[in-house]
Amino acid sequence: MKTLIIISHPYLQESQTQQFLRESLPDHDVTWHHLEEYYPDGNIDLQKEQSLLSQHDRILFQFPLYWYSSPPILKHWQDVVLTEGFAYGKNGTSLTGKEFGIVVATGVHEYEYQPGARENYTMAELMRPFQAMAQKCRMTYLPLFVISRFEYMNETQRKTLLIQYRQYLTKENRSSLAIREQWFKQELLHLGKKDLAETDQQLVDLMIQQMEENRERLDDLLWTLEEMEE
Amino acid sequence: MKTLIIISHPYLQESQTQQFLRESLPDHDVTWHHLEEYYPDGNIDLQKEQSLLSQHDRILFQFPLYWYSSPPILKHWQDVVLTEGFAYGKNGTSLTGKEFGIVVATGVHEYEYQPGARENYTMAELMRPFQAMAQKCRMTYLPLFVISRFEYMNETQRKTLLIQYRQYLTKENRSSLAIREQWFKQELLHLGKKDLAETDQQLVDLMIQQMEENRERLDDLLWTLEEMEE
Repeated sequence: MKTLIIISHPYLQESQTQQFLRESLPDHDVTWHHLEEYYPDGNIDLQKEQSLLSQHDRILFQFPLYWYSSPPILKHWQDVVLTEGFAYGKNGTSLTGKEFGIVVATGVHEYEYQPGARENYTMAELMRPFQAMAQKCRMTYLPLFVISRFEYMNETQRKTLLIQYRQYLTKENRSSLAIREQWFKQELLHLGKKDLAETDQQLVDLMIQQMEENRERLDDLLWTLEEMEE
Repeated sequence: MKTLIIISHPYLQESQTQQFLRESLPDHDVTWHHLEEYYPDGNIDLQKEQSLLSQHDRILFQFPLYWYSSPPILKHWQDVVLTEGFAYGKNGTSLTGKEFGIVVATGVHEYEYQPGARENYTMAELMRPFQAMAQKCRMTYLPLFVISRFEYMNETQRKTLLIQYRQYLTKENRSSLAIREQWFKQELLHLGKKDLAETDQQLVDLMIQQMEENRERLDDLLWTLEEMEE
């Protein structure tokens, strides 16, 4: 599965959050596509963008929340790229069945996004225009990935965020134990190939081995349960 | 009361709807401010815009619905103009108490904007990010003014639209009979001053006279009712 991250951020270099996410990227199957950097004059290349979309299976919009939406170039991107006949309409099936998700960063505590709290609307409500877009393009809408107050996160919270973000990028959407295992195994296999110390490589191998043994035991148990039911 | 219409439309000249609205404008107390025309290079003048906002009591966003939101320059306008300390935050009270409304034009039938219909979301939901903006700036949110399928409207429907649009621009928000009368009277008084044929001027005068007589009779009736209750 290939993932395209379409980032809109006018000051990406100065954003701690975005720099952290950029450094968290896996080295395979993910394309980082920063619009303001790629199009400094704001002229979106329709062909290029449509071809990028076609080459990926999961499309993500990633941006800081500015006035309850994205920065303007992402809106411009939508207006230019998602043409009738490509994205919607009678023969516009190029995005059909792809997954669509949103990575949105905000300086406000998540708690505030609910009726009665300071922002009064849920993030899900505020993202409705994007949800409607996904629906129009017959894409599967993924649960939101909201990053709140990254600056205040401690080391452990950031490590958790890193794992969750990488899962959001590449993990299969259905969430069974087997799928989570599979994802971790893939990650670990890629990790093993890198320049780790020998002892760390052995540790990784052990973890994979352990996980496989656990899986075998689980499969045995499941088989036994099925037998008992019959 | 002064009204500022902030229009965002990249092809305004070619839009029948927008041309119709432009020609429907009253000649007093309304400022038509088309962003793409005023800023062809896209560089918004912060000072100019904030000063415009301060000089008006009712602020309207007017745009065609592109991907369930406005064209990009209006988003850019929000990001540039609505600064902390001006529009929100501790001393940001410049917009407090002003009214905020949206005039949104769409080619899709209004019926489709509801759960279960083709677009699946209500226009009110899709406009949530603007509603949240109005809330943040402590502005009073007005009911939406949605124009659906202008191209298919007949002459009578267009005349009705014209009246409703002018009311949306300048009529007091609370809707009592007296306020509606007052609004019509104001409109008729302005109309009388223009270059009408003499018979038409007499007709206008008669209408005003008739409305005033009706009002007097209504006031008499109200007074009688109050007497009876005592």
